[in-house]
Amino acid sequence: MIELLLVGIGTGNPEHLTLQAIRALNSADLILIPRKGADKADLADLRRSICTEVVTNPAARIVEFDLPRRDQSNPDYRGGVDDWHDAIADVWSNTIRSELSGSGTVAFLVWGDPTLYDSTLRIASRLNPAPSVRVIPGITSIQALTASHAIPLNEIGAPFLVTTGRRLRDAGWPAGADTLVVMLDGDCAFQHVDPADVTIWWGAYVGMPQQITLAGPLAETGPRILKARAEARENNGWIMDVYLLRRKSADGEQR
Amino acid sequence: MIELLLVGIGTGNPEHLTLQAIRALNSADLILIPRKGADKADLADLRRSICTEVVTNPAARIVEFDLPRRDQSNPDYRGGVDDWHDAIADVWSNTIRSELSGSGTVAFLVWGDPTLYDSTLRIASRLNPAPSVRVIPGITSIQALTASHAIPLNEIGAPFLVTTGRRLRDAGWPAGADTLVVMLDGDCAFQHVDPADVTIWWGAYVGMPQQITLAGPLAETGPRILKARAEARENNGWIMDVYLLRRKSADGEQR
Repeated sequence: MIELLLVGIGTGNPEHLTLQAIRALNSADLILIPRKGADKADLADLRRSICTEVVTNPAARIVEFDLPRRDQSNPDYRGGVDDWHDAIADVWSNTIRSELSGSGTVAFLVWGDPTLYDSTLRIASRLNPAPSVRVIPGITSIQALTASHAIPLNEIGAPFLVTTGRRLRDAGWPAGADTLVVMLDGDCAFQHVDPADVTIWWGAYVGMPQQITLAGPLAETGPRILKARAEARENNGWIMDVYLLRRKSADGEQR
Repeated sequence: MIELLLVGIGTGNPEHLTLQAIRALNSADLILIPRKGADKADLADLRRSICTEVVTNPAARIVEFDLPRRDQSNPDYRGGVDDWHDAIADVWSNTIRSELSGSGTVAFLVWGDPTLYDSTLRIASRLNPAPSVRVIPGITSIQALTASHAIPLNEIGAPFLVTTGRRLRDAGWPAGADTLVVMLDGDCAFQHVDPADVTIWWGAYVGMPQQITLAGPLAETGPRILKARAEARENNGWIMDVYLLRRKSADGEQR
């Protein structure tokens, strides 16, 4: 029997680790670290340094494996992702089989929280035989963003919607909420929003040493973000960002 | 100058604490713990035991204070909350003034995350003179819920809406998302949702030793939750719960 521990590690600040995460990593027989080749955004270094810092159990073996690449030429996005997840599950299975003799505890360090816009749970569900899965929550980029700006995520008693850059770009401001959190946005979809009465709180690399934050009325702040984002991406070779948009609510009050 | 540290402590599992939270608490001159009288849900005991466990700096003084009560008879809900926050801010100011001579670092242990459905940031903004505020993110009940069920919060590339029991009861399933997280629900508002094709994942005391979880099709699971919730509330004297509702998306697929 294999137990799989999906351990949320937060967003790049090693101090985002919870005591529960540290205990989980130290309970593992095997800690698997994915490598994406020369891609700096694979954050393998961060995972390695977290392990070096907090894994004190000498029986916890740390093994790296190469992540298959997604076929970006597949015109069927959903099908392409499915195939890719299958390929990753195969690599996991093979690595676990060759490292453990049929039983043991395997841990993965998952960026942010394993339940938020992350494929690890879905890949785990494709393993055969099915392992038992335990999730250790971690600080998300949403929380790192609101913490960095010291702002409430929600207005008092009001809902908020978490969505993707693609959705915001294609369908505009969705019904149902005056507060939006936008994730997975490679194209600054806030440019497609009517900026009247909208405030943006933006952050890149939130929680990491290279953290950048900008906030203000969308009309003035949007162009500043475009510029800062392009520069940061150039300087670091990669970027990861997230933002919150809030518009004056129906009663005219921004809270 | 006063620096205010709002430290997210997670949802009752002392191991939800992050290394950053532990460092922040140990950097404080003063740690303030609110008491709500005989109310078991004030969780003052939990805060005390967290401090006992992780605060190793002898210079960090731990002081308890009585939280004013909210005037529940005020028919103006928003106004009543405003007045209450003013009253709490007064108590904070007085306690800080009497414990520190004008400068120092004050820490509050905030349930969950200080930016999610929490009034601490809003109370902090009423202090005079204004302190500098730093937020330390903590594991939220949303994450403790999805971790306990080992389920993804979102469908692939899809949005989700976080809302309150009151909104769900008054306005039904909101536009814009097939996944809802419902918080602050004292009345099991899921009873007002058409249960066809809806699955619920519910949890009470998520992350705590007395954690209870139930999941399944809303039609069958809703009544079980009503019963379990009433019993748990009776047994513990208080309850705190949260749930996720997911309905089959427009393309008919539940992912």
